[in-house]
Amino acid sequence: MPPLRQLSAAFHAVGRTQLVPRRLRQNALVPIRGCSCSSPHQSQHTVTVSSGAPANAQLNPTTADLSTPPTDHRTLAQTHSLFITSPYSPGSPLILPNGAYVFQKLQSFLRAQYPQFGFQEVITPIIYKKSLWEKSGHWENYAEDMFSVQGRGATSQIPEAEGGEDGEFGLKPMNCPGHCLLFRDEIKSYRDLPVRLADFSALHRNEISGALTGLTRVRRFHQDDAHIFCRPDQILAEIEQTLKFVGMVYNTFGLGPYKLLLSTRPKDSFIGTVEEWDRAEQQLATALNNIGSEWAINEGDGAFYGPKIDIILKDSNGKEHQTATIQLDFQLPQRFDLQYQASPEELEAGSRTSMDAGLDPSLRRPVIVHRAIYGSIERFMALLIEHYAGKYPFWLSPRPAIILSLNSDPKVLAHVSHIQSVLSGLTPQDAPVTSSSSSPKPLPLSTIQLPIDVDISDRSLGKKIAEARVKKYNHIIVVGGREVESGSMNLQIVNQPNEEVTLEVLENSLGNKLTDKDRTKSTVNIGLSGARRYFETLANSFL
Amino acid sequence: MPPLRQLSAAFHAVGRTQLVPRRLRQNALVPIRGCSCSSPHQSQHTVTVSSGAPANAQLNPTTADLSTPPTDHRTLAQTHSLFITSPYSPGSPLILPNGAYVFQKLQSFLRAQYPQFGFQEVITPIIYKKSLWEKSGHWENYAEDMFSVQGRGATSQIPEAEGGEDGEFGLKPMNCPGHCLLFRDEIKSYRDLPVRLADFSALHRNEISGALTGLTRVRRFHQDDAHIFCRPDQILAEIEQTLKFVGMVYNTFGLGPYKLLLSTRPKDSFIGTVEEWDRAEQQLATALNNIGSEWAINEGDGAFYGPKIDIILKDSNGKEHQTATIQLDFQLPQRFDLQYQASPEELEAGSRTSMDAGLDPSLRRPVIVHRAIYGSIERFMALLIEHYAGKYPFWLSPRPAIILSLNSDPKVLAHVSHIQSVLSGLTPQDAPVTSSSSSPKPLPLSTIQLPIDVDISDRSLGKKIAEARVKKYNHIIVVGGREVESGSMNLQIVNQPNEEVTLEVLENSLGNKLTDKDRTKSTVNIGLSGARRYFETLANSFL
Repeated sequence: MPPLRQLSAAFHAVGRTQLVPRRLRQNALVPIRGCSCSSPHQSQHTVTVSSGAPANAQLNPTTADLSTPPTDHRTLAQTHSLFITSPYSPGSPLILPNGAYVFQKLQSFLRAQYPQFGFQEVITPIIYKKSLWEKSGHWENYAEDMFSVQGRGATSQIPEAEGGEDGEFGLKPMNCPGHCLLFRDEIKSYRDLPVRLADFSALHRNEISGALTGLTRVRRFHQDDAHIFCRPDQILAEIEQTLKFVGMVYNTFGLGPYKLLLSTRPKDSFIGTVEEWDRAEQQLATALNNIGSEWAINEGDGAFYGPKIDIILKDSNGKEHQTATIQLDFQLPQRFDLQYQASPEELEAGSRTSMDAGLDPSLRRPVIVHRAIYGSIERFMALLIEHYAGKYPFWLSPRPAIILSLNSDPKVLAHVSHIQSVLSGLTPQDAPVTSSSSSPKPLPLSTIQLPIDVDISDRSLGKKIAEARVKKYNHIIVVGGREVESGSMNLQIVNQPNEEVTLEVLENSLGNKLTDKDRTKSTVNIGLSGARRYFETLANSFL
Repeated sequence: MPPLRQLSAAFHAVGRTQLVPRRLRQNALVPIRGCSCSSPHQSQHTVTVSSGAPANAQLNPTTADLSTPPTDHRTLAQTHSLFITSPYSPGSPLILPNGAYVFQKLQSFLRAQYPQFGFQEVITPIIYKKSLWEKSGHWENYAEDMFSVQGRGATSQIPEAEGGEDGEFGLKPMNCPGHCLLFRDEIKSYRDLPVRLADFSALHRNEISGALTGLTRVRRFHQDDAHIFCRPDQILAEIEQTLKFVGMVYNTFGLGPYKLLLSTRPKDSFIGTVEEWDRAEQQLATALNNIGSEWAINEGDGAFYGPKIDIILKDSNGKEHQTATIQLDFQLPQRFDLQYQASPEELEAGSRTSMDAGLDPSLRRPVIVHRAIYGSIERFMALLIEHYAGKYPFWLSPRPAIILSLNSDPKVLAHVSHIQSVLSGLTPQDAPVTSSSSSPKPLPLSTIQLPIDVDISDRSLGKKIAEARVKKYNHIIVVGGREVESGSMNLQIVNQPNEEVTLEVLENSLGNKLTDKDRTKSTVNIGLSGARRYFETLANSFL
């Protein structure tokens, strides 16, 4: 969870439907599919959504012209060597080093934020026995979307009852059942909650091969998935924190504005009581109000197991995407018989919900919050690829800088190699040029490592620069005899969003103001330690 | 690749067989199975292996008594909440937050070293069509070990030829075929080589359920897998670098001594010519000699597709493990028709191997080096769990420190919380105590984040300390009224390998020598920024 197929459908629907400001009082159709745990169905609801000023200032805005449609991410992926597809595994892109670099930055970015939001990462299986998926309801309700797995060996033909192998498995389409197993492994007290488990596992859903597209419609993908197991009285605080997390992330990537959609209790079929739904929806609405972002109600469009909040993102090209999602779930805790020892307040108040039916009076069931901020990392990458159109911020860029040699003088080549090593983070800034044959030492995990390229071919500088520009390096560094003598480099910013702030960082690293000429050309002569400091600051500032 | 099953068999065999110093001229039986790409068979060879002084000084030795057998990693995993198993997915351990923390440190450690060794990470599919596995030879030769995958939807019942789904897939047991697809995606020149692709993908092999054990015999695991595609004349340099990498890694973990075993051309069945094998084996032997570690020949025990080097590790308990492996492969490049444009030297010399048969004269086939340093990360973790027996070095420890409150005075609790935030890396060292309600800011990816726990229960300090010791925290920090007044904390090192060096780091962070009393007790009163600096240095020094 959350269900990607559903997001995918909504995404396309929203993409087709221009969302209309509330004040115009025009209605837009936003078809949203029920949760993938339930029987898939396509429901149509009328919903009013408001638009307005961005809730967040943009850290990394692009300068894309809103009137031109964005280049397709598959085309950009070729230019930047991000991924390829293969007929041997349709829907499972093979992610090349440049793409894997971006993918890992996205993952590391969230990981670096998890402790401050109280998430703990876990690693869970990829395959589970059929019996788990029957318990969770997926085997029946999600059959079309699931892959089945069986051992090929002779032993697997012996029935399980006779000591043979375990028969049929399902390749997981969601992490939630696995996280429920982890939650119930140890007896939990009210003091242990909330438990917040995060998981970047590979997930598989069997999309029809004709529908597969680049990174947006895939069979194998990764979510920045997490499940919060909390007490009913903790819902408000958890939702509020999650919405803050979403804001922080989207702001960092310069994404937005976005709108928040609260989907409420469906008319016909739902679990629990109307009062329980009202209470939960009230907490979601309060969290939305407290956050101060714009939001709208999507009446009756919650899943049968709980209300949810979806995030509709407008990218720099004006296109709208459904990405993050936050869903309450009253059902899975029952299916997996999750429980915790009630707090003194809960015991005194005798508060019990319909979820608690059949439980010992001292126990309660937690609520599960399914949440993803990127949604699918693959689809979020596709969105960023089109959003930045090759103009990646330095910290995320697979091509942050390239060093070009002016000639083939051995001294120049040695200087190029030394600069590459220092700027990459492989050699301390003040280390002398040493031979590479010395015994390697492990680099600390906190080192900021950067994939700095070099071009020491004997082509003309003009040709090398032209190619570096096509490849959209953020910086071009030129090194000739003069730079060897002064122990410096000629550095130009050629492809960086938010160039103004970047120039400020550069000035701070230099310790003096740029001349007007340097500023206009975004070019500067800089020493090795200054350049490394500048790169480190860019990376640490998410520029 | 490399084949884990094989390692596993060898591991057990080696575990049973005491390796004997060469000078004693006694022979020990080391049964090693052929590569998993070939038909599995168990071959017995007589081999002499020498032992001696460790090749590397130990960074993190344990103080385990060699006379007591180590506690089983499954028992230790319970004490330290590392992983659980579930009947819903036998052989796929569910890794708890503490275990995932160690797992990720292992992964991050290698990632931080990859740039200096020229490896680039890629992300490849988990499932591939049957036709790929037929091409690679796995479908036929590795049938017992593979899981087959099929879509469950109605569409998957339509034959592929009629536009239906894609029929049968295999869950990957190895990464090599996927890496071959990546290599051949773009035409390669001799200048592009070596290409070094690394991959941490989840792999699945269908072990019999009765054989499954904790993290050592599993069905789902991750290798620190990599494939080096190189020219024949690059083998020596690549093997030498890989052996250096192995040495660096094992030294960092305080593992060793280890022995290197070179397995040579099998007598009966092999591909290529005797001369080609001799040349390759000569390069491996030269690399082994250049490295200066002890090694021995395992005559005739190479796989039919190429010679290999296995690393036999003796842990601190005297038990021997086969972990890392480096294998040459002349076969897969042919099966996948891999090629590169030959260098002028190669063209001039007209050098062609039997691998190049049928290729255009301007083309050559690369050699593949399969290599893993940990082997299976899961099994390496099991080894480390037993090796450290709860005495993890700080940088790897899921429990680096716990803060205990002396009483429930609100000022004490506020100080505890502030210390936790600073030591965890969530708040800059000099920041004042602020309310947590302020808008969250993203933390840089280079921040050293530490899972610092607190115990502010109203139990006695003695009980809290006793529990912290059982849980094997590296440090116990006590905070009472006196520490509130002085803005400091009372820090004790209670569970740290290499305590002498650790105390030196502590003195450097304090800026003065410890008193003899403090030194004996390993206890010190220290300010927040000093303590954070001390923790950062420990982490960056792999202590």
